[in-house]
Amino acid sequence: MKITVLSGGVGGARFIRGLRQHVRSALPDGAAGSTAELTAIVNTGDDMWLTGVRIAPDLDSIMYTLAGENDEERGWGRIGETERVSAELRAYGVGWPWFTLGDLDLGTHLARTSLLRDGLPLSEVTRRITSRWDLGATLLPATDDEVETHVVVDDAGTSMHFQEWWTRHRAALPARAFVQHRVEAARPAPGVLEAIGSADVILVAPSNPVVSIGTVLGIPGIREAIAAAPAPVVGVSPIIAGAVVRGMADACLSAIGVATSAQAVAAHYGARSAGGLLDAWLVDQADAAAVPAVEAAGIRATAVPLWMRDPESSARLAADALAFATR
Amino acid sequence: MKITVLSGGVGGARFIRGLRQHVRSALPDGAAGSTAELTAIVNTGDDMWLTGVRIAPDLDSIMYTLAGENDEERGWGRIGETERVSAELRAYGVGWPWFTLGDLDLGTHLARTSLLRDGLPLSEVTRRITSRWDLGATLLPATDDEVETHVVVDDAGTSMHFQEWWTRHRAALPARAFVQHRVEAARPAPGVLEAIGSADVILVAPSNPVVSIGTVLGIPGIREAIAAAPAPVVGVSPIIAGAVVRGMADACLSAIGVATSAQAVAAHYGARSAGGLLDAWLVDQADAAAVPAVEAAGIRATAVPLWMRDPESSARLAADALAFATR
Repeated sequence: MKITVLSGGVGGARFIRGLRQHVRSALPDGAAGSTAELTAIVNTGDDMWLTGVRIAPDLDSIMYTLAGENDEERGWGRIGETERVSAELRAYGVGWPWFTLGDLDLGTHLARTSLLRDGLPLSEVTRRITSRWDLGATLLPATDDEVETHVVVDDAGTSMHFQEWWTRHRAALPARAFVQHRVEAARPAPGVLEAIGSADVILVAPSNPVVSIGTVLGIPGIREAIAAAPAPVVGVSPIIAGAVVRGMADACLSAIGVATSAQAVAAHYGARSAGGLLDAWLVDQADAAAVPAVEAAGIRATAVPLWMRDPESSARLAADALAFATR
Repeated sequence: MKITVLSGGVGGARFIRGLRQHVRSALPDGAAGSTAELTAIVNTGDDMWLTGVRIAPDLDSIMYTLAGENDEERGWGRIGETERVSAELRAYGVGWPWFTLGDLDLGTHLARTSLLRDGLPLSEVTRRITSRWDLGATLLPATDDEVETHVVVDDAGTSMHFQEWWTRHRAALPARAFVQHRVEAARPAPGVLEAIGSADVILVAPSNPVVSIGTVLGIPGIREAIAAAPAPVVGVSPIIAGAVVRGMADACLSAIGVATSAQAVAAHYGARSAGGLLDAWLVDQADAAAVPAVEAAGIRATAVPLWMRDPESSARLAADALAFATR
C-alpha cells in the first residue's frame, strides 16, 4: 500500500509518525517495518539562507520526529539542544538574533548546505541526510527550486521572509498576502509526481493550509497531479473548535479571507469533484456539527478525535484517516 | 610609532601579543593602550572552504590570542571549546572527519562566511569581526583574493589543500612543492601596502617561512613594497637549535631545500641589500654561533632568548626585536 502525505512541519511530523506507527502495526513486515510505503511531500516555502547556511525547517521537523530526535517538550528542534554557535553569531552582530540556530540543528543545516554547494539538488541532499536514520518514510521536498514564502505586510507592498514574520513578529503584523518567490518557474522535485500518481491514498496532514499545504500546492504541476490521481484524497483539519491546534495558522487564514474553522478550511481546499483538492475531510468531534455542511459541498466528512496528544492518539487518527479513505 | 608584522598563525599570534604588551608598557597612552600602532599582515594561504564555511586559521589564531580567548593549553582554537556541530557533520558523513571544527570557532567561521556571502571583501569582514574585541592591533589579510596553498605530494603532480596535508597527514607525506592557487592574479588587501610603506619598523614573526611568511611574500606587490620601504626589516627565527619551535615547518623547509636551522632560514629570506627580505635577524642564544655567518651574508644578527614561554618572555623578545631594529 502506497501512502503519500502532503505535509508542513511540526503538525505534519506528528501525523506522519502516527501513520508510521499505525502501518507498522496494521501492515507489518518481518523486519519491524511495514509493507506500506510512506512518502511525505514536504513544504519548502519556509526554507531560507541564513548566515550562509540553508535551513529547511519542515523537512527537519519531520526528520527529527521520525528519528526520535525531536524535543517533545519544546515542540520543535532537537532534544538536548544548545546554542553555543548562535551566541557567537550574536556577539559578532551577524544573523538574526531572534532566530534560534541550535548547535545540533546547525549540524544538519551545514551538512545540507555543504551538499547543496557541491551541486546536489535538495531532493538528493534530503535523501542522503535522512539516510542517517531509519525513518520508515521517504521525505521529498515539494520542489528542488528555491521558492521561499514572503509575507506582504502593508499596502505599499513591503514584504519579508515568512520566517521573519513568523518568528520575529510572531505573526502579529497583519499579513496582506503570501507570495512564493519565483514559483512560476518551479518544478516538483523528482519523485513527487510519481508519489502522487502511484499512491493508493493521498493524505493532507493537519498542517497550515496557507503557508504549508498551500505552498506545496502552489508548485506548478502538483495540484494538477493530485486532481488526476486515482487515489482518494483525505484531509485532516488543522482547526479544532475554531482554534488552531498549534502555530498561528489563523493569522495566515485571515490574510486570505478564510475563517478559522474546520468547515471554512475544507471549503478553501474545495471538493475534488468541483476542481478542488479533497475527496474527504476529517474534523474533530468538537466540530461534528460541521459535517453536514462539508458533505453538502461535495466532500465526504466525518468527526473523529483529532488531537495528537501522543504517538498513540496520532496513530489512531492516522488509522481513522486511512479507514475513511477506503470507506 | 608604526609597527607592521608579517605573520602566520599560532607563533605569530604569541609574538604579536608580546609586542602589544611591550608597546603598552614602553609607549603607553592614557587609555591602557599604546601610542604605537600595530598592524599584522596575515597569511591567508591556509584558508579554505569546508562544508560551505570559510575558514581562516591564521587570522583566527591571532584574533583569539589577542582577545584572550585562545586555548593556551591545547595551543590553538578557543578556550572552553566543544565539538557538537562537528559530531553531527560526521554522523551525516559530511566534511573532513579529521578536521576539528569547534562550536565557538564555527561561530567565527559562520560570521565570516555570512559577511563574505554578502559580498564584503575579507579585509572588511576581518575589520568587522575583530571589532568584537579590543585587540590593540589591526589584522589585515595579506590579500582579499582566495589564494589557497596546495601541496604537491608526488612526481605525478598530485596535490591537496595544505590543511589536508598538514592536519590529516600530519605533514608526513613528503612535499614536492607548495603551490599558491591563482596567486598571479592576487592583489594585496587594502591597507597592506600602506602598512608596509608607512611603517617605522617591519617585523617578520617567527612563523613558518614557507607556507606562512612565504605565502604572504608570494602575493604580487608585497615583496616589492617591503624592498622599497624606508623601515628596517627585522626577522625572528622560527628555528631554535635546529628544531622548529612548534608545528612542522621542517617538513616545509626540506621540501624547498632549506635546512632546518636559523642560519639557513636567514639565507632563504636573504639580505635586503642583496634583493632579499631582511635587514636584521634574531636567533636564539643556542644559535649564537650562527651570528657571524648570518652577518657575513649581509644581515645584521644577534642572539637573544627566542622561546616564547609566556606573555612576558614574548614581550621581552618583541622588545629585543624593536631595539635591534633601531640599533
